[in-house]
Amino acid sequence: MPRDPDVAQRALAQVQRLLHRQHIVQQITERQHFAEDDARHELVSRLTHKQHEAELRAVIDDLHPADIAYVLEALPPDDRAEVWGLVAPEADAETLGEVLLEASEAVCESLVEALSHERLVQIAAALDADQLADLAPLLPQAVIDEVTQSLTTEEREDFRAALSFEEGSVGARMVFEMVTIRDDVTLETVLRYLRLFDELPDHTDQVFVIDRDDHLKGALSLNTLLVNDPDATVADLMQTEIFTLHAEDDASDAAQAFERYDFVSAPVIDRRGRLIGRLTVAEIVDVIREETEEQVLSAAGLREEEDMFSSVWESAKNRWLWLGINMGTAFFASRVIGAFEGTIERIVALAALMPIVAGIAGNSGNQTMTLLIRSIALGQITPANVRRLMLKELAVALANGVVWGTVAATFAVLLYFSAPYVLKLGTVMFMAMVLNMLVGAAVGMAVPMLLKKLGRDPAMGSSVLLTFTTDSGGFFIFLGLATLFFS
Amino acid sequence: MPRDPDVAQRALAQVQRLLHRQHIVQQITERQHFAEDDARHELVSRLTHKQHEAELRAVIDDLHPADIAYVLEALPPDDRAEVWGLVAPEADAETLGEVLLEASEAVCESLVEALSHERLVQIAAALDADQLADLAPLLPQAVIDEVTQSLTTEEREDFRAALSFEEGSVGARMVFEMVTIRDDVTLETVLRYLRLFDELPDHTDQVFVIDRDDHLKGALSLNTLLVNDPDATVADLMQTEIFTLHAEDDASDAAQAFERYDFVSAPVIDRRGRLIGRLTVAEIVDVIREETEEQVLSAAGLREEEDMFSSVWESAKNRWLWLGINMGTAFFASRVIGAFEGTIERIVALAALMPIVAGIAGNSGNQTMTLLIRSIALGQITPANVRRLMLKELAVALANGVVWGTVAATFAVLLYFSAPYVLKLGTVMFMAMVLNMLVGAAVGMAVPMLLKKLGRDPAMGSSVLLTFTTDSGGFFIFLGLATLFFS
Repeated sequence: MPRDPDVAQRALAQVQRLLHRQHIVQQITERQHFAEDDARHELVSRLTHKQHEAELRAVIDDLHPADIAYVLEALPPDDRAEVWGLVAPEADAETLGEVLLEASEAVCESLVEALSHERLVQIAAALDADQLADLAPLLPQAVIDEVTQSLTTEEREDFRAALSFEEGSVGARMVFEMVTIRDDVTLETVLRYLRLFDELPDHTDQVFVIDRDDHLKGALSLNTLLVNDPDATVADLMQTEIFTLHAEDDASDAAQAFERYDFVSAPVIDRRGRLIGRLTVAEIVDVIREETEEQVLSAAGLREEEDMFSSVWESAKNRWLWLGINMGTAFFASRVIGAFEGTIERIVALAALMPIVAGIAGNSGNQTMTLLIRSIALGQITPANVRRLMLKELAVALANGVVWGTVAATFAVLLYFSAPYVLKLGTVMFMAMVLNMLVGAAVGMAVPMLLKKLGRDPAMGSSVLLTFTTDSGGFFIFLGLATLFFS
Repeated sequence: MPRDPDVAQRALAQVQRLLHRQHIVQQITERQHFAEDDARHELVSRLTHKQHEAELRAVIDDLHPADIAYVLEALPPDDRAEVWGLVAPEADAETLGEVLLEASEAVCESLVEALSHERLVQIAAALDADQLADLAPLLPQAVIDEVTQSLTTEEREDFRAALSFEEGSVGARMVFEMVTIRDDVTLETVLRYLRLFDELPDHTDQVFVIDRDDHLKGALSLNTLLVNDPDATVADLMQTEIFTLHAEDDASDAAQAFERYDFVSAPVIDRRGRLIGRLTVAEIVDVIREETEEQVLSAAGLREEEDMFSSVWESAKNRWLWLGINMGTAFFASRVIGAFEGTIERIVALAALMPIVAGIAGNSGNQTMTLLIRSIALGQITPANVRRLMLKELAVALANGVVWGTVAATFAVLLYFSAPYVLKLGTVMFMAMVLNMLVGAAVGMAVPMLLKKLGRDPAMGSSVLLTFTTDSGGFFIFLGLATLFFS
C-alpha cells in the first residue's frame, strides 16, 4: 500500500540511481578486466551484479502494480528490460497482470514481448473476464486460446460479452464482479451474507436487488445498510428509482453523469433489463483522462500516445499523417500567394504583412473553436440556442477584427510611412483583418458542428482545417484586396 | 434521483420547447391586444402565463441540482433569469446551494446577483464549511459576515481553515465531514455506532481510527467491517499503513494517486499529524476535468472559461490578452521578412514558399511539445532521462526534416521548373526545412521545461512562444539562406 502521493516518484529516482551506479561499476570492472585474471574478475563481477539486483528488487517489491508500471514507463528500453526481467519471474501472476493493465499500450507491448508463453498464460488466467478482454488485443492468440479453454462457462460468456462491446461503450468498461441480493430478506440477513465473502468487490458502495430472472429491481447502498435497523427488510429500504446504464451507452455520457451526481458505482443492464455488470468511478476517472488526452493529442496531430522512448522510426511514423496533411494545406496556401506574385513584385511590403492577417485570424478562430468544442462536449449546444451562439461569436469576431485591424493598419502605415501607397495599404490591411477574423470565426464554428453531425469527434483534425482556411483565406483576401486597390 | 445519463438533456429540450412556445404565445397575445379590450386581455395573458410557469416548474422540480445548473448554463441570459426566477423562491436552500456550487463561475455570478440578501443568507447557512469556502468569493461580504456569526466555533474554524488553503491544494478541496472511531472497540460496537447516524457522509468507504489527540492511527474500510466477525476488535483489523495526504499537498498529485490506486477517499492530516478532513473521488474527478480544461483553454489563449452567452464585450476582453501577444509576435515575424525585402523583390517565389517552412516546423514542434507536456504532467521526466529524451526528439525532427524537406524541395522545383535559379531554390528549401524543424523541436522541448523550472504551468502560453520561434526563425533561416545563395 502506497503511503503518500510521492511513493512512485521516489522509487523511480532510487531505481535510476541504482541503474546509473551499476553502469559505472560495469565500466570500471571492464577496464580492470585487462589488469586481472579472468576467474577473479568473473567472481567479483557476478557478486556486485547480484547485490545490484537485490537492491533493485528491494525497491520494486514494495510497490503497487500501478507504480511498477509508472517506473517502467519512465525508463529507457534497455533499463526497462532489466527491471522487468527482475520483476517478471518473481512477482505473482496477479500483480504482473495489473502492471500490464496499468501500463500504456505502447509500453505494455514491449513488456508482453519479454514474457514466455507459460508466464503469459499464468498471468492471463489470474485476470477477471473484463480485464482479460482489455488485455486481449495485446496478447498472442495462442495465450488467449489456452486460457479461454480453462475458463468456466460463465467466465467464458463474460469474456466474449466483454470483447463484443464497442470501444467507448459502457459495456467495454464495466466489471462483472458485484454483490446481488433479493428483496424479501432482512438487513441482518444481508449482513450475514456479506460476512461469507473474503472481501467485497472493489468499489462496492451498493448491493443490487434482483429478482429470479436477474432483472434489476433496486439497490441498497452500504450507507443505508449500515445506519438502519437490522430487522428491516430490503424491500422497505432499497431505492427503486435508480440510475441505470445500458451496456451500449456511451462511456463519456456515463462519465458526465458520474461527475454530476458523484456516483461511486452504477448498475449496467442489457436490452432485456437484466443486470449484467457494474461501472465504477475508477473506470470513469480513466475515461475522463483518456478523453481529454485524446483531444490534446489529436489537436496536435498525433495519431496515438507514444512510448516516451519508442524508436525514432516509430515516433516519426506516428506524426506523419498530420504533417502530411499539413504539407498539403501549406502547398495550397503557397499557391494562393503564387497567384498574386505580380502584385507582390510591385509592392513587396505585402509579403511582409500577409502573415499577420493569416496568423491573428487563425488564433482568433481557434479560440472560438476551443469554446465550441467544449460546449459540445458538455452537451450545451442544442438546436434552440445554436443560432444565437453563432451570431454572438460573429459579433465578437467583428469587434476583435475592428480592434486588431486598426492596430495592424496603424502598424503598417507607420512602417511604410514614406511609401506613396501608404493609405491604401492601411485600408487593405484593416479590411483584410476584419474579413479574415469573420472567416476564422465562421470556420471555427462550422468545422466542429459538421464533424459532430457526421458522428465524428468534433476536435479531430479541426485545427488543421481551421489553419488551412485562415491561411489560404487570409492570403487570398489580403492579396486580392491589394490587387484591386493597387491596379 | 436521475434515472439515466440523458435526464438532463431531455429536461433541457423540454424547457427550451416550453420557453419557445411561450415566446410565440406572447407575440400572438400582444397582437390581439389592439383588437380586444384591456381587461380581458390581461386575464387571458395572466392565465396562460401561470400555466406556462407551472409546466416549467414541473420539469425543473424533479431535477438533481447539478442538472438544474446544466439547464441554466445552456440557456441565454433572459431565459436563464426566467427559469431561475421560478426555481429560486420555491426550492429549499440546500438545493439552491448545490446549484450554485455546480454552476460554472461565470454563470454562478449571474445567479447570485438575482437573489436577495435574505435568500443568500439562507442558502449560505445551509452549506457545509468547505462548501461555504468554495462559494465565498462569489458571495457579497455582508452575506458571509451574517452567516459566519451564526456558525458554531468549530464550524467557523473549519471555514477559516478552508479559506486559508491555497487554490490547487488538497486542503482547498477536502471535506470536513467524516466518521472517526477508536481502535479498542469491537466491530459490533462500530456497527452500533454507525446506526446512530441518519446517514453516513458521502463517499464513506472507510472510517478513520484516531487517538485522543486526533492523531490518525489507521483506517477501517467498510469492506473489512462488513466481511469480518463482529467480535473482532478494530485494532486487529484496521490498516495502519495507509495512504495519507497533507493539506498542503498539490491536488493534482493527489489526483494522480487516486487514479493509480483507485481510491474512493483518503484522509488528510495537518503538519502535526492530526486528522483534519477527507479528500473524495468526487472532488478528484472535478480536479482532473478542470486541469485538462485549463490546459485546452490556455493553449488557445483564453484567460478563463466563458459563460456561453456572456456579452460580446466580456467575451472579446477574455480573448484579448493572447491576441495582443500574438499581434506582437506577428509584427516581429513581419519585420524579419521586411529585412529581406530586397531578396524577395528579386525572387518573388520566396514569398510564396516561406509560409511552408514556418508552418510545418511549427506543427512538428507542437507535436514534440504536446508529448513533453504530457510526460511532465505524468511525472515521467527526471534528470536521469531528460538528455536521452532530447536527443531522441532531435533525431525525430531531423528524420522528419529530411523527409518533408525533400517533399517541399521537390514541390518547389516542380513549380518553378523553368526559372534559372530552380536548383538553388530547391536546395534552400530543403536546408531551411531541416534547420527549422530542429528549431521547432528544440523550442518545443525548451519552453515547457523552462516554464516548469520557473514553477509555472508548462502548457501556459507555450504554443504562442513556439509559433513565434518557428515563424520568425523559419522566415529568417529561409530568407537568410536565399540571400546567401542568390547574392
